[in-house]
Amino acid sequence: MASPPQNLDPIDGQKPSESCAVVGFHGRSQAFPVLYSALRTLQHRGQENSGVAIFDGEKIELLKVDGHVYEGFRPHIEKNTTPKGTIGIGHNRYSTAGLKNITGAGPFLVNTSSGQIAVAHNGEITNYKEIRENLKGMGMPFFTTTDTEVVVNLISKEIKERGFINGLRNSMNVMRGSYSITMMIDNKLYAIRDPLGFKPLVVGKTGDGTVVASESSAMDVLGGETIRDVEPGEVLEIDENGFRTILKVPSEKKAHCMFEWVYFARPDSVIDNIEVYKTRYSLGMELAKEAPCVGDVVIPVPDSGRTQASGYSEGSGIPYEEGLFKNRYSERTFIMPSQAERDDAVRIKLNPIRSVINGKRIILVDDTIIRGTTTKRIIGILRKAGATEVHVRVASPRIIAPCYFGIDMKTRDQFIALRRTDQEIASEIGADSVAYLSIEGLTKSIGKSEKDLCLGCLTGKYPVKITDEIEYVQKTLE
Amino acid sequence: MASPPQNLDPIDGQKPSESCAVVGFHGRSQAFPVLYSALRTLQHRGQENSGVAIFDGEKIELLKVDGHVYEGFRPHIEKNTTPKGTIGIGHNRYSTAGLKNITGAGPFLVNTSSGQIAVAHNGEITNYKEIRENLKGMGMPFFTTTDTEVVVNLISKEIKERGFINGLRNSMNVMRGSYSITMMIDNKLYAIRDPLGFKPLVVGKTGDGTVVASESSAMDVLGGETIRDVEPGEVLEIDENGFRTILKVPSEKKAHCMFEWVYFARPDSVIDNIEVYKTRYSLGMELAKEAPCVGDVVIPVPDSGRTQASGYSEGSGIPYEEGLFKNRYSERTFIMPSQAERDDAVRIKLNPIRSVINGKRIILVDDTIIRGTTTKRIIGILRKAGATEVHVRVASPRIIAPCYFGIDMKTRDQFIALRRTDQEIASEIGADSVAYLSIEGLTKSIGKSEKDLCLGCLTGKYPVKITDEIEYVQKTLE
Amino acid sequence: MASPPQNLDPIDGQKPSESCAVVGFHGRSQAFPVLYSALRTLQHRGQENSGVAIFDGEKIELLKVDGHVYEGFRPHIEKNTTPKGTIGIGHNRYSTAGLKNITGAGPFLVNTSSGQIAVAHNGEITNYKEIRENLKGMGMPFFTTTDTEVVVNLISKEIKERGFINGLRNSMNVMRGSYSITMMIDNKLYAIRDPLGFKPLVVGKTGDGTVVASESSAMDVLGGETIRDVEPGEVLEIDENGFRTILKVPSEKKAHCMFEWVYFARPDSVIDNIEVYKTRYSLGMELAKEAPCVGDVVIPVPDSGRTQASGYSEGSGIPYEEGLFKNRYSERTFIMPSQAERDDAVRIKLNPIRSVINGKRIILVDDTIIRGTTTKRIIGILRKAGATEVHVRVASPRIIAPCYFGIDMKTRDQFIALRRTDQEIASEIGADSVAYLSIEGLTKSIGKSEKDLCLGCLTGKYPVKITDEIEYVQKTLE
Amino acid sequence: MASPPQNLDPIDGQKPSESCAVVGFHGRSQAFPVLYSALRTLQHRGQENSGVAIFDGEKIELLKVDGHVYEGFRPHIEKNTTPKGTIGIGHNRYSTAGLKNITGAGPFLVNTSSGQIAVAHNGEITNYKEIRENLKGMGMPFFTTTDTEVVVNLISKEIKERGFINGLRNSMNVMRGSYSITMMIDNKLYAIRDPLGFKPLVVGKTGDGTVVASESSAMDVLGGETIRDVEPGEVLEIDENGFRTILKVPSEKKAHCMFEWVYFARPDSVIDNIEVYKTRYSLGMELAKEAPCVGDVVIPVPDSGRTQASGYSEGSGIPYEEGLFKNRYSERTFIMPSQAERDDAVRIKLNPIRSVINGKRIILVDDTIIRGTTTKRIIGILRKAGATEVHVRVASPRIIAPCYFGIDMKTRDQFIALRRTDQEIASEIGADSVAYLSIEGLTKSIGKSEKDLCLGCLTGKYPVKITDEIEYVQKTLE
Repeated sequence: MASPPQNLDPIDGQKPSESCAVVGFHGRSQAFPVLYSALRTLQHRGQENSGVAIFDGEKIELLKVDGHVYEGFRPHIEKNTTPKGTIGIGHNRYSTAGLKNITGAGPFLVNTSSGQIAVAHNGEITNYKEIRENLKGMGMPFFTTTDTEVVVNLISKEIKERGFINGLRNSMNVMRGSYSITMMIDNKLYAIRDPLGFKPLVVGKTGDGTVVASESSAMDVLGGETIRDVEPGEVLEIDENGFRTILKVPSEKKAHCMFEWVYFARPDSVIDNIEVYKTRYSLGMELAKEAPCVGDVVIPVPDSGRTQASGYSEGSGIPYEEGLFKNRYSERTFIMPSQAERDDAVRIKLNPIRSVINGKRIILVDDTIIRGTTTKRIIGILRKAGATEVHVRVASPRIIAPCYFGIDMKTRDQFIALRRTDQEIASEIGADSVAYLSIEGLTKSIGKSEKDLCLGCLTGKYPVKITDEIEYVQKTLE
Repeated sequence: MASPPQNLDPIDGQKPSESCAVVGFHGRSQAFPVLYSALRTLQHRGQENSGVAIFDGEKIELLKVDGHVYEGFRPHIEKNTTPKGTIGIGHNRYSTAGLKNITGAGPFLVNTSSGQIAVAHNGEITNYKEIRENLKGMGMPFFTTTDTEVVVNLISKEIKERGFINGLRNSMNVMRGSYSITMMIDNKLYAIRDPLGFKPLVVGKTGDGTVVASESSAMDVLGGETIRDVEPGEVLEIDENGFRTILKVPSEKKAHCMFEWVYFARPDSVIDNIEVYKTRYSLGMELAKEAPCVGDVVIPVPDSGRTQASGYSEGSGIPYEEGLFKNRYSERTFIMPSQAERDDAVRIKLNPIRSVINGKRIILVDDTIIRGTTTKRIIGILRKAGATEVHVRVASPRIIAPCYFGIDMKTRDQFIALRRTDQEIASEIGADSVAYLSIEGLTKSIGKSEKDLCLGCLTGKYPVKITDEIEYVQKTLE
Repeated sequence: MASPPQNLDPIDGQKPSESCAVVGFHGRSQAFPVLYSALRTLQHRGQENSGVAIFDGEKIELLKVDGHVYEGFRPHIEKNTTPKGTIGIGHNRYSTAGLKNITGAGPFLVNTSSGQIAVAHNGEITNYKEIRENLKGMGMPFFTTTDTEVVVNLISKEIKERGFINGLRNSMNVMRGSYSITMMIDNKLYAIRDPLGFKPLVVGKTGDGTVVASESSAMDVLGGETIRDVEPGEVLEIDENGFRTILKVPSEKKAHCMFEWVYFARPDSVIDNIEVYKTRYSLGMELAKEAPCVGDVVIPVPDSGRTQASGYSEGSGIPYEEGLFKNRYSERTFIMPSQAERDDAVRIKLNPIRSVINGKRIILVDDTIIRGTTTKRIIGILRKAGATEVHVRVASPRIIAPCYFGIDMKTRDQFIALRRTDQEIASEIGADSVAYLSIEGLTKSIGKSEKDLCLGCLTGKYPVKITDEIEYVQKTLE
Repeated sequence: MASPPQNLDPIDGQKPSESCAVVGFHGRSQAFPVLYSALRTLQHRGQENSGVAIFDGEKIELLKVDGHVYEGFRPHIEKNTTPKGTIGIGHNRYSTAGLKNITGAGPFLVNTSSGQIAVAHNGEITNYKEIRENLKGMGMPFFTTTDTEVVVNLISKEIKERGFINGLRNSMNVMRGSYSITMMIDNKLYAIRDPLGFKPLVVGKTGDGTVVASESSAMDVLGGETIRDVEPGEVLEIDENGFRTILKVPSEKKAHCMFEWVYFARPDSVIDNIEVYKTRYSLGMELAKEAPCVGDVVIPVPDSGRTQASGYSEGSGIPYEEGLFKNRYSERTFIMPSQAERDDAVRIKLNPIRSVINGKRIILVDDTIIRGTTTKRIIGILRKAGATEVHVRVASPRIIAPCYFGIDMKTRDQFIALRRTDQEIASEIGADSVAYLSIEGLTKSIGKSEKDLCLGCLTGKYPVKITDEIEYVQKTLE
C-alpha cells in the first residue's frame, strides 16, 4: 500500500475573487434591508452572485443567491426567509470564467475555536497559493479554491496563535495584493483595507446605524451620510457606538486603482475624497487639450463615455450630441450559433441616430479601449449611417499589461494598444484617427500623484512583486 | 332542469392587448433568428412575454415564452428547439395588470376551415366586446378574453363568408380602434394597419428577405433597410418576391399616436417619415422658447428626458449636464414590505452627482409627467444634494384623459395635470416652477397637423367613439 | 394573390386523449380538496398532467399542472392559490407520445353563447376527425388537436341549435367510441357515459355533497359512499339536492372494457357492480384449472400479478411466495445512453429473493403480456438466481389487436401473441412453458357475458366500426 | 476592544448524518453509471439528496443533487455533465429534520496536505461534538455541523501526524458509534467499517471492477457478485487488482443493528451472511408460535409487513390475503391545511378490499410499531369495511428507547410500547388484541446471539456509552 499521492488540489488555473462589492452594517434596525439596498446600489461591481451573513442573536446565518441582487433575493424577501438580525455583511461577486457556482460566492463563513468568522472580500491576494500551501501544511483543510477562504483561514490561525490585534497585523503583513474586507467574528463587525489602498472602502452612518461599503453612493441611496474613507492599512471595529480604529498597518506609498475613477465606480461616488464624475469630466477636458480634433459633433459611446464626451465638448467647443442609442434591454448578450447573431451583437446594443451622424465628421469619445473590437464595430455602424469621418478619442492612457489586483484583464495578447502606434490602431479599427490621454493627463484629472496610484496596467510596473510575471511583462515591453 | 345561465363569460374587467411590438419575416434564411433580433430590438414595446409563429413546411408552429426576449428564448436556442422555417411572425407583450399568464401571449393561433391563422397584434380594438358577443351568438367559442382572439375569429369568419379580400375589408370596417397586425394564414404572410394609423408599422428588406416591424430600428439592427411605412388602412401581402398592396381601406383623417414620438418609440426610429430623435430635440427647443427659465444648469431625467434636455440647453444657451446617475441594474423595482425600501425605490434608480447640483439653480427637463410622484421624489433628491432652485420643464402638453388605444393610462384620477394650474402642480411636487409645452409646440415639433394626430389623452377628444366613456370625460373636463 | 391553402391543420398523426381519470363534485364544502383527493386516488389512470375547473361564484376558474397530482398542485396549495368554489370537475391525463404539453391537459374550457363549458373526458372518440372537419366547415376555430375540444365544440353547437336536452342527445348520437365525461356549464354539473359503457363512471356522496368519479375507490378515500354506476347512455344532472337522470340514450348491447378488471383499475374498485379484486383472484383460480402446472412455488410479477397469483396458488394448492422484490423507487425509468443502463432497466425494478428461487420450479403468474420483453428479462433473472424451471401463466387471454377506445396499444406488430403458438412464445421468451387464460375463463371470472364486454384487443372484432382499420385487422388475422 | 466571544458554533440541536447508503467503485469502466445504479438500488436508505465524488484523472470532482437519485441526476445525465472517471464513491442521505440543504449532502470533500479526501458516511459518531471541539482547538475550521466533516478532518489530521495506517487506526479508536464508510484519498479507494459492525457494508465485483456498497442487492442489480461482508473493524484498500485488508481494529463483541433485518434493508439483501427475506419470514413463523390467534384471514400492512404475514400464515395455517390496497403514487404525503386532508392521509395510502375484510376476523401483521398512530387509522379503516375483529401481531419486540446509531427514533415520548401493557396498547389503538414478538424470537429468527446485535432501542442498553443519555433512559425504564 503506497502513501496517497500529493498535490492533486484543483487550485491551478483558477482565478481568485476579483472586483466585487463589500458592505457591512451594525445598527438598531434589521440589517438585511440595509445590506440589500447597498448591494443593489453596488450591483455594477459584481453580477454573478450575492450573499449576506447576519448575526441572528445566537449565530451567523448565511444566505447566498445566484445572479443579480434583485432577482436572487426576491423570492426570499417574498417568503420572509431572509436572515434576521441587526449586524451583518454582504457581497456581490463579479462574473469571471471559473468557479461560477454559488460555492465560491461570498461571504465566506467558518466555525473556528475563535468563533464564527465571516468575510466578504474585494480584491486579489497575489500570493494566496503560497499561503494556502503553508496552511495546508499546518493541517488546515480547504473546501474551495478561492482566495477568500485563504484570507479567513489565515486570520483564524493568526488570531488563535497571536491574539486578536497581533494576529490581524501579522495576517495583513503576510497577505500581498489588494483587499477591502468586511468581516464578522460572531457578533463583532470589522472593516479592513490593505496598506496600499487598492480598492475603495468607505464608512458612513444612517439614522439607524453604521455602514461600511465599497462606494459612497451606497450611503446616498440609504439616505445616510459618508463619514470618511477607511484609510489604507486601517482596521475599524464597528459597534452600537459607531466605529473606531483598532489597528493601522503603515505603508509609505499608496496604490489606488486608477480604473475605479476611469471606468469601474459609479460617477456619483466619491473615492479617496475625489468625486468620480468630476474626474471623468476633467479627463474629457484634458483630452480635448492634448488631442484636439477638427469635427462637427462629439458623440459618446454610451453609457460609459458620456461624461468624458461632455468634458471634451466643453473643452473643444464642439457640440455634444447623443448619436448612438443604447438598447437598455441588452445588458446581457448571448451568442447564438449563427453568424447573423454574432454580427448583431453590437447592433442590438447600439444603433445610430441618423440625423446626428449623416454627413458629419464625428469625434467618438470612449472611456477606455482594451481589445478594440467593439470600437471597430461602432465605427462601421457610424460610417454606414453616413459619417464622413470618425475620429476616436480615448479618455485614458493605453492599456498594455495585465491587472493582478482585481480588474478582469489577465492576458496580454488581448490589448490592442500593446506595441502599436496610434496610426496602426486607427487602421486596425477603421478610424480616421485615434488618440489617447497621457498618463500625466490622467493623474492631473484624478488629482493624485503617480506614486499614490496603481498604474500597473498602463506601465507594466506593479506596486507589489508579482512572482514570475513581472519579468515577462518587462520583456514584452522592451 | 333549467337551461344553463348565460353570460358568465369572465371578460368584464379585463384589459385588451396594449402597446406591443409586432414583427414578420418572409425570406430565404431561417425566420427565427430574424424575428428574435427584431423582438430584442423592440423589447421596449413589451416586456411581459414574447412569442413567434413560424410555418415549418407543413403547419404553423408556436413558441411562447415568459419575460424578456433574451431570457425567455435562451433555453430554446441553446437546446435548438426553436421553430424552424423561413416564414413567421412575432410579438412582444406589454406588462399589464390582468392576464399576466402566457395564455394571453401572442401570437394567437387557431385552426379553421380557411387554414391555420396566426395573428400578432399591437393596439386596442375598442368595440371588441360587442364583436365578441356577436361571434359567440353565431356559435364561436372563445378561449381567452383577449381582443386578439376577437380579431382572429372575426377575420376567420369574414374570409369564410365573403372571400379573402372582401372578408378582410369587412373585418377592418367592423373593428374600431388601433391595430397594427402581422398575420399568417398557413404559409402566407400579411401586414395590416388600421385606417387611422394609430400605431406605427414599417416594411423593409434585409439581404435575406422582407421584414415587417413596429419600428424602423428593427431594420437597422438586422442590417437591413426600411422601405416605407405601411400606410393607414393598407394590407400588404408578403412573399418571396417582396410585398404588394392587396387592399386599401380609405380614411379621410389620420390619428397617429403622438406618444410614440414623445416617449414610447426608440429615438433612432423613423415613424411616418419623422425621426423620433429630431422630434424630441425639437420638443426641447420649442419648450425653451415657450417656457424660458433663469437657471445655472439644464439636467435631464435619465434616460427618457435626455434628448429634450439637450434641445432645451441648445434653445436656452444654458449648459447641459448629467446631474442624476441612473443605476442601470434597477429596471425592475420590487416593493419590500418595509417603509425603508419604499422610500428607496426612486433613490435606487437615481442618485445625484453632487458637484453638478450643489449650489445651483436646476432646470429639470422630463419628457412627460403623468402622476408626478417620481418627479416629486427627484426634486427632493436634488434639494438634498444642494440645489438652490428646481424648475420643472415638461417637453409635452398636460395629460388629462385616459388612452383607449394602447397606452397604459386608464384611470382619470391618476393625472396630476387634470384641473390643476401650473402653480398648483409646482406646489404639489415641491418645485419652484412648472411649465408644460403647448399643443401647438407639440404638433410643430412633430411636423404633423393636429388632424393627423391622436391627441385624445391631451384633449379628451378621441378620433373614434368610445362608448360610454366620452361623455364622462367631457363632464370631468367641464 | 391566391387564396390561402387549405387543410394544413396539424391533426394527423396525433393521438386523442386516452385512459384518464375524471371526477366531479357539487357540495357544501370547497370543491378543490375533494377533487384533489379523488385525483390522487385515481393517479394510476393518468400521470402526465392534471387539472381542475371550479365555479368561483362568477365564472369557471381553471388550474392545470404538470406531472403527478401531489407534486403539481403542491405549490398552489402551499400558496393557497387553488380555485375557490363548491362546484367543480377534475381530470388526470395518461402519458402518451404526442401532445405532452399542458395545453392538451384537461379539463377543457371555452366561453360560448350557451355559457362557459368545461369538460373532463376519459375515452376516445373514434370519429373525431370527421366531426372536427364538419365543425370547422361551419366556421368553428380549433386551438388544439385533442378530441376533447371536439366534444366541447360539438356539444356547444348542438345545445345552441337544438336546445339543451336535444342537443346533448344529438351529440351522443353523433359521437362514436368511448366517453365517460364530467361537464360543467357555468355552475351546472353533469356526468355523461357513452351508450356502450366502455369506461367506468360512478356516482356517490360524501357528508358534504355529491361526487362523480371514474372509480368507486375515490368515494372510499373521501370517506363517502358509492351509490351506483352511471349507466351506459345516461346523463346525470348534479346539484345541491343530489343527482337525477335527465337523458338516457339507449343501446341494445354493452361494451365494458375487460382491461379495467384485468389490469387498469384499482383492485379495491367496484366497476359495474363487480369488485376488481375478486375478479382478479378468480382469474387466477380459473387459470389454475385451465392451465395446471407441476411446480414448487407460485410467484407473482409484482405488483400487478399478485392477486391472480394468490388465486392460482389457492386453485392449484402450490404455495405462493414473493420471489421478486420490487424497488418502490423505480416507478419512472430513464434510459441512460449506455448499454449497461439499458440492461439494468428491469433489474433496477425487480430483484430476486434467492432463497425463494434457488433450486425451485417456478410458476410465474402475470396479469397480461403485451410485448413479452419484460417477461423475458424476468425469466433471465429467475434462472440466474437458480430457478430450475420457469413456467409462465398469464391470467388473461392473448392480446392480438389494437385498442381504439382508450388503452395505449396502437400498433399490431408489438403483440407477441399475434400468430405465435404457446410453444413459440415460450421459446421466444425463454420459458419452459407458457399458457394463457381462455376468453371463456375471462368472461366467467368477470361474471359478464361476452356481448356486454369489449373484447376488441383479444378478437379484433370491435363494438363500433373503426374506419379503414377493421378490414386490415381481419386480414392480418386470417 | 474586547476579544471576540467564543462558542457561537451553531452545532447544538443539530442531528448528525443517519441511516444512509454508501457505495464505491474502482474499475475499468466509467464509475458514474455504476454508482448511479447502485444508489438507485439503495434509494430506500436515503431520499433527501445524493452525491458522487469521482476522480477525473487530475482531481476529485463532486456532484450533489437534491431529492431522489433518478430525478436529481437525470438533467446531468441528459446534458452529459456527470463527472467522468473510473474511481468514485457515492452517497444517499436520509431525510431528517435539520440540515435539509444540499451543503450537508455527501460525499464530503476537502483539500489537505495529504491530498484530496472524500468521504461517504453511513452511521452516527456519538462523540463527534467532543472530537470537533478538539479539532477546532487545534485550529481546524468547520464549514458544516455534520459528523461527516468531523470524520474527514479527524482522519486528515491523524494521517498527517501518524502516517497513513497508524492515523487511520487511531481515528477508528477515537470515533465512537456507527460508521460504514467509503473514502477516496485522491485516486485511492477505501472501505471502512466500525469495530462493532453496526451498519452493513459488503464488497463484490462486476465484470468491470470492484464494488463496495451498503447492501448486497446493489451487486445483484449491477449484474455482479457479492464476495463478502467488510468485517467489523476492517479497512479495505481497493484498486485495479481488487481489494485487500490493510487494517483490522479488533473488538470482542459485535453490535449489528437488528433493525436492518426487521425493517430497514431490502428483503433481497444478505447482511452478515443472513438473508433478510428469510429472517422476515421466520419472524412471522415465530410470531405465529409465540402469539397464536383465532381468526379468518392474515393480512399484511403493505408493503413492509408482507413477508412476515406470509410467515405467520404458514406458521398458523390461517389463509393469507391482501386486504389493503396500497396506492403506489402516495409515497410522499403532504399535509393540506384542512382537517379533511389530514384525515385522508392514511386513506390515500391504504384502502380496504371489501370482499376480503367484510364479516371476517382479521389478523393484521406489521413489521414493527413505533408510535401506533398509523396502526390505529388502519384498524378504523378495517372496521369500517366490515371486519368483526382486528388482532394486531407485531413481528418484532417492543421499541422503548431512542437510537443513537443511525435510525431516526430520537425522542422517548413517541414510543407507544413504553410503559404500556399489550392490553393498554390494544385499547389505545382500538384493536381486539395486540401481541409482540419476544427478543428471543427475534434473535432466533436472525440467527445471531444477543451479544452480536445492537438491541439498544428494545432494551435501553447500548453497546457503547452514550454520554448523559444512558442514565436518563435507565431511569425512565425503572
